[in-house]
Amino acid sequence: MCMDEVRKAAERAKLASLRLQSMSTQVRNSALKEVAISLKRNEAAIVRANQIDLRNGEENSLAMPLLKRLKYDHPKVEESVEQIESLIQQEDPIGRSISKTELDDGLVLDKVTTPIGVVAVIFESRPDALVQISSLCLKSGNAVILKGGSEAKETNSALANAIVEGIMRADEGFKDAVQLMSTREQVRELLDQDDLVDLVIPRGSNQLVRSIQDSTRIPVLGHAAGVCHTYVDKDADVEMAIKVAFDAKCQYPAVCNAMETLLVHENVAKKFLPLMAQRYAEAQVEIRGDTRTRELINAKEATEDDWSAEYNDLILSIKVVSSMEEAVEHINRYGSHHTDAIITRDGETANRFMDTVDSASVLWNCSTRFADGFRYGLGAEVGISTNKTHARGPVGLEGLVIYKYRLSGKGHVVADYAGDGAKEFTHRKIK
Amino acid sequence: MCMDEVRKAAERAKLASLRLQSMSTQVRNSALKEVAISLKRNEAAIVRANQIDLRNGEENSLAMPLLKRLKYDHPKVEESVEQIESLIQQEDPIGRSISKTELDDGLVLDKVTTPIGVVAVIFESRPDALVQISSLCLKSGNAVILKGGSEAKETNSALANAIVEGIMRADEGFKDAVQLMSTREQVRELLDQDDLVDLVIPRGSNQLVRSIQDSTRIPVLGHAAGVCHTYVDKDADVEMAIKVAFDAKCQYPAVCNAMETLLVHENVAKKFLPLMAQRYAEAQVEIRGDTRTRELINAKEATEDDWSAEYNDLILSIKVVSSMEEAVEHINRYGSHHTDAIITRDGETANRFMDTVDSASVLWNCSTRFADGFRYGLGAEVGISTNKTHARGPVGLEGLVIYKYRLSGKGHVVADYAGDGAKEFTHRKIK
Repeated sequence: MCMDEVRKAAERAKLASLRLQSMSTQVRNSALKEVAISLKRNEAAIVRANQIDLRNGEENSLAMPLLKRLKYDHPKVEESVEQIESLIQQEDPIGRSISKTELDDGLVLDKVTTPIGVVAVIFESRPDALVQISSLCLKSGNAVILKGGSEAKETNSALANAIVEGIMRADEGFKDAVQLMSTREQVRELLDQDDLVDLVIPRGSNQLVRSIQDSTRIPVLGHAAGVCHTYVDKDADVEMAIKVAFDAKCQYPAVCNAMETLLVHENVAKKFLPLMAQRYAEAQVEIRGDTRTRELINAKEATEDDWSAEYNDLILSIKVVSSMEEAVEHINRYGSHHTDAIITRDGETANRFMDTVDSASVLWNCSTRFADGFRYGLGAEVGISTNKTHARGPVGLEGLVIYKYRLSGKGHVVADYAGDGAKEFTHRKIK
Repeated sequence: MCMDEVRKAAERAKLASLRLQSMSTQVRNSALKEVAISLKRNEAAIVRANQIDLRNGEENSLAMPLLKRLKYDHPKVEESVEQIESLIQQEDPIGRSISKTELDDGLVLDKVTTPIGVVAVIFESRPDALVQISSLCLKSGNAVILKGGSEAKETNSALANAIVEGIMRADEGFKDAVQLMSTREQVRELLDQDDLVDLVIPRGSNQLVRSIQDSTRIPVLGHAAGVCHTYVDKDADVEMAIKVAFDAKCQYPAVCNAMETLLVHENVAKKFLPLMAQRYAEAQVEIRGDTRTRELINAKEATEDDWSAEYNDLILSIKVVSSMEEAVEHINRYGSHHTDAIITRDGETANRFMDTVDSASVLWNCSTRFADGFRYGLGAEVGISTNKTHARGPVGLEGLVIYKYRLSGKGHVVADYAGDGAKEFTHRKIK
């Protein structure tokens, strides 16, 4: 596919998106049904393709965790099919009336949810993401252009073929609604088509997200970093603090919502830190502390870089603070506005913390690890966003939706509402 | 203010925004009250400053309409004060619960509206915009950095001084919540501070909006062009079509929601176009038509450029089409996704048109001129957006708002929900 062809592919995606968004819930759901059927029908080809990728991965000495995530076998096909079936059951996110206002007699304004249009998704490693994101886009009436990691090339190609086969069975005009790109040059070209592509969703490493944010004018939904904090307040229940801070660091340290820095109020540090350090030692967590922390427990010295580091590993920085306000300042300064928690028995302090910490998720007496689309009950997740516009925090289908205003009149003209003796608007909300 | 000072100003705005967003409705409203009082108190100084701008404008041969828009006198002060008072009465856009979910016993998730943070506003000519946007930002808990046109330099400076005097009377910490920049170099520098500034709102010419969109990674809210259409369907009430299409072009041609292209179904063209042309001739509208139009009425020949031209003047391009579908294709191809209308008696055709036209506002049997925040009942308007994310169409206070997730537990940890025999989420919606 040469560069000009990328533009043409995006144009075809735009047309497919216009077709998709004019289709009823039933048609979009039947396309999803056909995708599920097609995945099952093409299982042998998909698994064969995956074995090629796995073999290449082994030959290229891909790390074990990456090889594991690359695997797409019979249980994975079943899981994808189940996810699609549950998505079909979900309420249609588009065509929903957000508000309705009578502007004047016979002039009615309806604010209705619509698809965004064309979504570009750049993801790494997991082939499941291809199926998940394509289905979310179809459900919400968006066309999608995908680019996966080169290590999953064969699997992604087999999956995309199966998906396109399925959607074309529902409607020939959906053919270009799901497209796969294969090279970085194509992605670079695609990110320039800001008149055709409406949203970019990168799913992968911080470097991937940052490089995309830096190279496009299209809105990017996602987060570059997950530097999450837990603050143990002077009025914390120490036992609870130990349990929650342990979970936040150790339950799954490789992910963006795991805690990276623990802040401890000086009044509770002496009692809390030695007990906490013992728990962490059992789990082999490496601790890097500030001076006051190192007076109480064994720890390496934390450098300035540690306060903004996302370890994604069994490493934790700890700082003793003199007040809740100091903790909040530290979080707003060094954090990534992703997810931050307070442990305290004092409801007023908790509220103050949650009001002033400028993050997508602010938590009280629970683990940062809860910040995710599934746990928040959003169904499938598009990603976690640290944006301050459009969608913030864990994002479900609603992140793939915008709205349009539909105004219906009976020949109404603005001239009648201007000047002396003019008509007046009623602006009456309609339930 | 040197370049480094722009960064520092943005940092101070960020801190002020964090302070603002932790304040109650009462405090933010009292700041608005103080701004209104301060405007009245400083009226003499403001009007004097405006007279300097007006004199300079005359000396620099500023066009009459621009001079008129530049004027800020006693009635304008009163108008600004009235707008602020009405804004105080409006419901608080922040701290509103969007949805509430029990994730499990004692673990409750609340999705609550919050301010965006720091908003940069670049506007031209009208000094009223400074007062209006600052008040909207204060109401919604955002800090704002403004840059007005050089022709209104003195007025803007006097207005900003009065506003800052007012907000500081409510809370000393609000000092940096409203700031004024004075040079283009400062704006260029400001647009680079994408870690501090969360949203840019340009209000002015297409060139202004485009140049800003092209030079920042910060989300931009607005529209570069307003190429609006009216499509007169074969089943249109001809009398209504004439009335509405006249209003759409002539009621106020200089603005973005005025019609620029009229599309007419071939079955109705012979009857409709000569009558319509007569009305336009009375208003001295210049018509540029395609071949089929020119077979029916007197018109210049439309070139390819005419179909995407925003005249903002008494000029109109007209095209005869063979179907509603052709009209929709034309609109989606040449339009600016701003506002487009259909005139028809057929409800099904109207729905199809409104479903498939990919614009922020889609209208049936009424004038494109209705697409505006005041007429839509949104109260004061931040601007009209043709974005496909965050906010689309006329944008009121809700465009200055995002949300955060607040999760409260009793020591809940994720480990309890993983593996065999794990706890399960309830995900029960709370009304």
